[in-house]
Amino acid sequence: MKLYDYQRAPSPRRVRIFLAEKGITVPTVQVDLGAREQNSEAFRAINPDCTVPVLELDDGTRITDAIGICVYVEALQPEPPLMGTDARSKGLVTAWQRWAERDGFYAMMEAFRNSSSGMKDRGIPGPVSYPQIPELAARGRGRLATFFARLDKRLGESRYVAGDRYTIADITALVTVDWTSWIKLGIPDDAAHIRRWHAEVSARPSATA
Amino acid sequence: MKLYDYQRAPSPRRVRIFLAEKGITVPTVQVDLGAREQNSEAFRAINPDCTVPVLELDDGTRITDAIGICVYVEALQPEPPLMGTDARSKGLVTAWQRWAERDGFYAMMEAFRNSSSGMKDRGIPGPVSYPQIPELAARGRGRLATFFARLDKRLGESRYVAGDRYTIADITALVTVDWTSWIKLGIPDDAAHIRRWHAEVSARPSATA
Repeated sequence: MKLYDYQRAPSPRRVRIFLAEKGITVPTVQVDLGAREQNSEAFRAINPDCTVPVLELDDGTRITDAIGICVYVEALQPEPPLMGTDARSKGLVTAWQRWAERDGFYAMMEAFRNSSSGMKDRGIPGPVSYPQIPELAARGRGRLATFFARLDKRLGESRYVAGDRYTIADITALVTVDWTSWIKLGIPDDAAHIRRWHAEVSARPSATA
Repeated sequence: MKLYDYQRAPSPRRVRIFLAEKGITVPTVQVDLGAREQNSEAFRAINPDCTVPVLELDDGTRITDAIGICVYVEALQPEPPLMGTDARSKGLVTAWQRWAERDGFYAMMEAFRNSSSGMKDRGIPGPVSYPQIPELAARGRGRLATFFARLDKRLGESRYVAGDRYTIADITALVTVDWTSWIKLGIPDDAAHIRRWHAEVSARPSATA
């Protein structure tokens, strides 16, 4: 196995944390997104979506999506479980992960990609260039305020995002929350429950992966 | 179990097709999105995200996300498998489903919600109203062109979206393709492989669910 990665990017960080929680080490190939290496002919042949992470298996199969990679690893090595243990918890963890991704991670991407000076024609990831849409940056910041409020409420009721166990939903939420510092947002001052949770999940060795 | 549903909406259709493929019948409660019932106080208490589908279990647990519901049902009743059968195929099916969702379903939503006269303050689903962004409707149509091109290429190499077996990736792609008629797009004339696949998956009894 090898992982096409970029150390500074949030999507592959989700996979790196997941692998670290499993205690699995995979050799990485760094794809320099800063130099737009993901749009090169060479990388396009590896992943026509022009995104990282990509996990390449020993038989040459490539899994070109962060959560697809996590599903593969979870099936290969179920312990410790990060995606639920029975039908009910698997459904709930999936729903919370997707909530954190849709209302958090994608909102953050909307805000970041449509405002950062380094992302001028990169309104969306992928092989096609799309110009920034300033209204979308503003909408993303508004959606992140909703996300933070709901996350704080949830973490007032529950130790972790999807319940009493650390899961992939915490990984998506952690990567999202950390990335908001790039758009000068960060955790709201009054979000005490997010701060409690953030200190706890950031103290896990996987957080530095 | 009961399913909060809206017969005309694409997200719950994904779950209805999935359940039909499993041969499972679940009583439904229709939530009238046309009348904005999803934003009522009563429904907000059921799902603060103000979206359908929601699956309510007999113990009162609610799974408030289409794919979360499918993961629950797949774990409860693995046959016929719609999300892969071993680690490799589970990872690949997840990655293809998410590709169809991200580059197809969400692009279609972007195009539809930001242009339809019935969606004036509904640029995004959920509890908060966001105005339409016309550039986003145009971007969505551009992204759908890329989605159709890639889907046609894929279906020239493979019987189904994720390989030689019908899976949840076909369900997401089918619901997306059918919904594009609402924005007067539909399958491009020259997309012969999509037409072959579309005829085949539409002939399955589940397609009318």
